[in-house]
Amino acid sequence: LDILNPIYWKNNSLHIIDQTLLPSRLETISLSSVREVWTAIQRLQVRGAPAIGIAAGYGVVLSSLMHKNQPVITFKEKIVEDIDYLRTARPTAVNLFQVLDQFDNLITNSDETVPEICLAIEQLALAIHADDKDRCRQIGRHGQEVIPGSATVLTHCNTGALATGGIGTALGIIYTAKEQGKTLQVFVDETRPLLQGSRLTAFELEHAGIPATLISDNMAAMVMATHKIDAILVGADRIAANGDTANKIGTYGLAVLAHHHHIPFYIVAPLTTFDLTLENGQQIPIEQRAAEEVKIISGNYISPENTSVFNPAFDITPHHLITAVITDQGIIFDPDKHKIQDFYSNKYSEPKLKESLQ
Amino acid sequence: LDILNPIYWKNNSLHIIDQTLLPSRLETISLSSVREVWTAIQRLQVRGAPAIGIAAGYGVVLSSLMHKNQPVITFKEKIVEDIDYLRTARPTAVNLFQVLDQFDNLITNSDETVPEICLAIEQLALAIHADDKDRCRQIGRHGQEVIPGSATVLTHCNTGALATGGIGTALGIIYTAKEQGKTLQVFVDETRPLLQGSRLTAFELEHAGIPATLISDNMAAMVMATHKIDAILVGADRIAANGDTANKIGTYGLAVLAHHHHIPFYIVAPLTTFDLTLENGQQIPIEQRAAEEVKIISGNYISPENTSVFNPAFDITPHHLITAVITDQGIIFDPDKHKIQDFYSNKYSEPKLKESLQ
Repeated sequence: LDILNPIYWKNNSLHIIDQTLLPSRLETISLSSVREVWTAIQRLQVRGAPAIGIAAGYGVVLSSLMHKNQPVITFKEKIVEDIDYLRTARPTAVNLFQVLDQFDNLITNSDETVPEICLAIEQLALAIHADDKDRCRQIGRHGQEVIPGSATVLTHCNTGALATGGIGTALGIIYTAKEQGKTLQVFVDETRPLLQGSRLTAFELEHAGIPATLISDNMAAMVMATHKIDAILVGADRIAANGDTANKIGTYGLAVLAHHHHIPFYIVAPLTTFDLTLENGQQIPIEQRAAEEVKIISGNYISPENTSVFNPAFDITPHHLITAVITDQGIIFDPDKHKIQDFYSNKYSEPKLKESLQ
Repeated sequence: LDILNPIYWKNNSLHIIDQTLLPSRLETISLSSVREVWTAIQRLQVRGAPAIGIAAGYGVVLSSLMHKNQPVITFKEKIVEDIDYLRTARPTAVNLFQVLDQFDNLITNSDETVPEICLAIEQLALAIHADDKDRCRQIGRHGQEVIPGSATVLTHCNTGALATGGIGTALGIIYTAKEQGKTLQVFVDETRPLLQGSRLTAFELEHAGIPATLISDNMAAMVMATHKIDAILVGADRIAANGDTANKIGTYGLAVLAHHHHIPFYIVAPLTTFDLTLENGQQIPIEQRAAEEVKIISGNYISPENTSVFNPAFDITPHHLITAVITDQGIIFDPDKHKIQDFYSNKYSEPKLKESLQ
């Protein structure tokens, strides 16, 4: 399969496909300062919970290069300042904070020299990227358990190569199914307001030769009523300890519709997207974005210019509407606090988990 | 309230606000041939089930003017041909066919002269328009029963002056509530793909000074979960004998979501939108429209150009998800075949209906 490689580190710069230009232009831009990385995350030139974390990691590398001529104490202070700045780029996806915490710990606990810390920071950024790539593959493998040989699935937003460091989460399962020779038909929600489904997912699937049918978000209910949908596969930006999940706006509605139509509804995410410090989804901060994202498309107002807008970027799907969370370490069916904590602390070995749920 | 007057007959031409240009341009165009009326309906320059019927009626007037110099038999044949042509403009809204049937009957059963028939045709077109205007007012009045003094409602597509011959159906209830001094907050689904919510409803409500908040269709579920919504009010393009209702795509999903959140879900339509010849919603033809409506916004592709699209213009909401149908003759709570047939044949007087349902 021809899968995009939208984020890489080269010549001391972070290179990303500018996702705001897709699908009309496939352009890679290079980011060489912390501020540029912050802006790229905030503007959604790079988006998707795992990809945001990876980009932020490379942002810390850029910070270390910027300050490498300072004495070690100042060097550390400056980087921690930049880390705190990067934390403010977006509020919902937990991967951003978990990645930045790793760098914060590395720097705070290090008693090495500036060049040694610089090297360690670059190695950590590359390791986080490689780790996510591997987790995508593991997710793709585990996910096959819920995908029949001939499957019709529905997905929302973009959860593919453009959202991660590898083949993706929900789309990673679809790519893997295709590689295994399964026959797929994919319905793609366009995902208003920023159209990640039509701009990115339809683009990725076409690129990989997988048949996709684009729909407006409000057609999903009719598709569920009139087609046999085997699975709804979506990503996650943060999963609370009880399984409540923040994901792209529209996910919650899909989960309610799936429940009504008796269609399995799967959250697909690496374990790095879990935030066990939060008891439930009500504690996950939801980003509110600019009204213009709803009112302007392709540079033109599609509503009166002064109309009020409610524009939450994410919603919360309660765990009881989630059939299973598909992770890189296996599948958590009927997620709840008990199962997720046991799973996370490895009390269950993977075969035992499956056995206990049958 | 300042309510638009988007359709009127003047100087032997039909004048309509070209709704494809809203909200950026408020322009009235004049239509002076049957083909122009057909095209305006097909292109959605005029839309909304009642307004389509009204426009088609004036189309028949234009046909009669075009053929008035023919002998009476040819005159009648030509008009019936034009009537059959107008029937093909759009398939789902029943008002189009019911209006055209009235003209067909008038012409077929008339033994008058050409000038007399011309006059009768014009009078019928004007009467259909006036009748719809009156029905909108009656709907607005009956609808107050379900709207509290301070209300938050959610609506979909456009059901206002731009969709009817008067103040509208669902929006007519909102306008009437405002006139009665009720405090209103209206959430408006943008209604992809053609954005009748953002382009038309947000425009109408702003024009009338009613506070509106625009949302993407996929935000409706979160709005229902996080706000106290008193009522969801939507229109209808055709209501079958058992209460199953065809309306703008997305309506069915809203009904499922309303059911899940225990929010009353109201279909608002004049009795002219009922089609008692169809037993249920499965028999209502659903218009499939061009893929480009989903793929192109403001002249630009928002998806890969070759992406496949599923673009049904309407969906079917089964009657068991409908709290009530609000009509110009009163409210039918818990609609089913029995209640609608009784209601339609006036077995129930209005007070008796309400009494029997309490």
